[in-house]
Amino acid sequence: MLTVDKTDGTFLYEQVVHLIAGQVENGALRPGDRLPSLRGLSRRLDISVPTVRQAYLELERQGRIEARPKSGYFVQASRQNRLVRGARVSGKPSTVKRQALIDRVYDHIHQTGLLPLGIANPGMAHPATRTLHRAMKRVMARTESRLLGYAPAYGDPGLCRQIAYRYLNQGGSVDPAEVLITNGGQEALTLALQSVARSGDVIAVESPAYYGGLELIESLGMLALEIDTCPVNGVSLSALSKALEEHDIRACLFSAAVSNPLGCVSSDEGRRNLVQLLESRDVPLIEDDVYGDLVFSGERPRPAQFYAQRGQVLTVGSFSKTVAPGYRIGWLLPGRHLGRARKLKRAISCSSGLLQQLTLREFINSGDYDRHLNRLRPKLQHNAERMIACIEQYFPAETAISRPCGGSVLWLELPGGVDSEVLFDRAIDIGISITPGRIFSPADRYRNYMRLSFGHPWSEAIESGLEALGRLVRELAVSGRTPAPVPARHGQNLNPRVS
Amino acid sequence: MLTVDKTDGTFLYEQVVHLIAGQVENGALRPGDRLPSLRGLSRRLDISVPTVRQAYLELERQGRIEARPKSGYFVQASRQNRLVRGARVSGKPSTVKRQALIDRVYDHIHQTGLLPLGIANPGMAHPATRTLHRAMKRVMARTESRLLGYAPAYGDPGLCRQIAYRYLNQGGSVDPAEVLITNGGQEALTLALQSVARSGDVIAVESPAYYGGLELIESLGMLALEIDTCPVNGVSLSALSKALEEHDIRACLFSAAVSNPLGCVSSDEGRRNLVQLLESRDVPLIEDDVYGDLVFSGERPRPAQFYAQRGQVLTVGSFSKTVAPGYRIGWLLPGRHLGRARKLKRAISCSSGLLQQLTLREFINSGDYDRHLNRLRPKLQHNAERMIACIEQYFPAETAISRPCGGSVLWLELPGGVDSEVLFDRAIDIGISITPGRIFSPADRYRNYMRLSFGHPWSEAIESGLEALGRLVRELAVSGRTPAPVPARHGQNLNPRVS
Repeated sequence: MLTVDKTDGTFLYEQVVHLIAGQVENGALRPGDRLPSLRGLSRRLDISVPTVRQAYLELERQGRIEARPKSGYFVQASRQNRLVRGARVSGKPSTVKRQALIDRVYDHIHQTGLLPLGIANPGMAHPATRTLHRAMKRVMARTESRLLGYAPAYGDPGLCRQIAYRYLNQGGSVDPAEVLITNGGQEALTLALQSVARSGDVIAVESPAYYGGLELIESLGMLALEIDTCPVNGVSLSALSKALEEHDIRACLFSAAVSNPLGCVSSDEGRRNLVQLLESRDVPLIEDDVYGDLVFSGERPRPAQFYAQRGQVLTVGSFSKTVAPGYRIGWLLPGRHLGRARKLKRAISCSSGLLQQLTLREFINSGDYDRHLNRLRPKLQHNAERMIACIEQYFPAETAISRPCGGSVLWLELPGGVDSEVLFDRAIDIGISITPGRIFSPADRYRNYMRLSFGHPWSEAIESGLEALGRLVRELAVSGRTPAPVPARHGQNLNPRVS
Repeated sequence: MLTVDKTDGTFLYEQVVHLIAGQVENGALRPGDRLPSLRGLSRRLDISVPTVRQAYLELERQGRIEARPKSGYFVQASRQNRLVRGARVSGKPSTVKRQALIDRVYDHIHQTGLLPLGIANPGMAHPATRTLHRAMKRVMARTESRLLGYAPAYGDPGLCRQIAYRYLNQGGSVDPAEVLITNGGQEALTLALQSVARSGDVIAVESPAYYGGLELIESLGMLALEIDTCPVNGVSLSALSKALEEHDIRACLFSAAVSNPLGCVSSDEGRRNLVQLLESRDVPLIEDDVYGDLVFSGERPRPAQFYAQRGQVLTVGSFSKTVAPGYRIGWLLPGRHLGRARKLKRAISCSSGLLQQLTLREFINSGDYDRHLNRLRPKLQHNAERMIACIEQYFPAETAISRPCGGSVLWLELPGGVDSEVLFDRAIDIGISITPGRIFSPADRYRNYMRLSFGHPWSEAIESGLEALGRLVRELAVSGRTPAPVPARHGQNLNPRVS
């Protein structure tokens, strides 16, 4: 129980510092936990608000807690772990062959009963189910008679206006008629890629890259070229510049704000330079901006779209990551490729779900969407810190971890001996899904990497799942260090799972 | 008022025949109207049921009325108009260039305030809004917590089972795991085409063909080859056989049951022979079966899928035409192309709307879907007959009309001088949308044809719209017969709209 002794002789604020520090040390308060508000603690301890503030400032100075704008004070993550490294990639454009692996991952991704650390579904960390359903019921009551009809092919104009208006809030001017509503962000990616490239073309991607983009490139018969990507600043412009000299790159497919799986946010300056580099060579940039609203700080980075001078940036957005993947509503700002993208949209799926579009429009219009985001972001940040703390505790010390600025995933580099596909199978056996690293590279990189999702309400089950996962990683790290198995021609195979 | 005179001396049944015939002649009863039930009329006229039955049998013999299973007796359409002719097409595979025209049609298709005779949306003839919304609310109450998440990539297993079960009722065995849920029938077409063909390949299509298929072929860079199609029996097997000899046809894209725009249903025998012909040459058949449940007789034709021996038939189905296009839920039975189709589905759109899938599953499961179809089919048939009667009355005598066996559209051949694209523009000016004929052909056929939709609750507005449309057609037929306008180089253009 929290108490202070006013007769103790030491400063009251020091007693508060001692109390809080003690609770962090004994684990009662854990990384990411929110501290009581100034007013709340002042009431509970019967001391003044300035005294509590002084204590919190001292704890912040000591690096034990941190202030977050409009959210209060939180226990700081320890940050003692190693930061995941950037990959040095070099090589030729390659055909992607990730579908078989993705098949295996998908077979389990929706399996109920598994601890779903493999699926990136940030909105689930703080589901908006009730408010969204209320919005849907209002829409149903108001517009019942026309809800079964086709939505306009390019999207409900009211929703397009709302989306354009949100960009205005970020300082960019978007014409609602240039917003194309799609069946989720994935269809927007499809339209974007098919608008600017065709079978056989080379598409530059980050390394590691979102596997949904890689699978799409594979499906469309295009080639992928990995570009060096820094886990803090994103795609390396010098590497990209070199690749543009050496290869006939038809388009780039990069994350706009928060990358998946790295979780990093490039600087506005970096994005401006990227657009200048690409537009000077007339190479389209497809920016995947589905995580932009989930930057923990709430300071949304400006999409590359805003720096475009020649209409060569195509921006993919979605409501799947923030609120409702089941709705399948995303959008594309196709820049100067609007005409082609519209025709493709009509041809491949006619239009998108009407009730979902009207519901999201109502949800945004009522202010519920922003309120939801304001609650979701701190939850995600909290979860990230909790998960990092668990990994520090349960995984081998050599494990390196990304420092996500937003979104819902961590990217881990495991000890060299660990094959994350073997880990994937073993984890499924004990009821946990993860995403193995190799799925994020068209070549065979990231064998000992994996992605973990923290987009779920935090629970004991997640903690004990991470503990169990840590044990598996340790086991595999040890067995991976043993001498190489006798070659198969000698009639033995020590590890049938990866044969 | 209906009365009979029992002291009249003539047979009572003859008086009833006279009464009904008189009402048809004076227009009180119109083609497609339902007659009172046997019991109802017997009560109203105070005569026996067998007497009424005898009268109805006589009226049926005279061709004035017709019996429909489980629905009762209906005033027969006059059938005096000319049946639309089948096209003789010959030529080479051609690139499709219909997108500009489709652009123009789409610009108006969702314009509110227009009489929407251009859009094929049969379910609107008898909207299931209330029952479907009740089903949705039950689903929302029951499964609220997981409704925002992703649906399984290949579809909700329960809905897949329901779809498979419905095929069982038609005598075909479909494994639920082979049903792939899509974003409407159009995405199913996309997956089917992309599963079996690629850019540059030749796809055989009907003539006339559904423009959504043509636009898709155009978007994917494929070529279309029109095959002679009979307005009664569908695709000509001899023409197809010849085309297969002469061209390297990669796949066929044909209607399964009710063709759009012809409205015809091929025979089961014809479909069996078609499948045999194609499978013997290992050419995949994509059958567009979205209208199968809307055959007026309720006798659903067996899809070509059931005759497939080698997995080379891909069947496209949808709930858009029967109940809710705004839901964007369709499906594909990809036959032996299942693996490729699944990967494509994941790559191009991840999954389909979850709430919509669960709602349709509930709607089918409750029996509401079948009850809805049983009410919708007679409405559509009634509308078809009404519309045919109006066209006979208001359009020039040379107009030829299709005899749809189901669905919601009529296909009209207008007098030779009428350019239906000019008619399209003029009709928009007076508040009516139609679909011009050229949109249904990759070549420039069907200039003087048009499609009209009867998938709306019948109304005075539709009748007066058809009257106005008939006037426009007459005007254009006359101006089309006048000598050709003076060539433009003489500084005149008598018809600026088509310059």
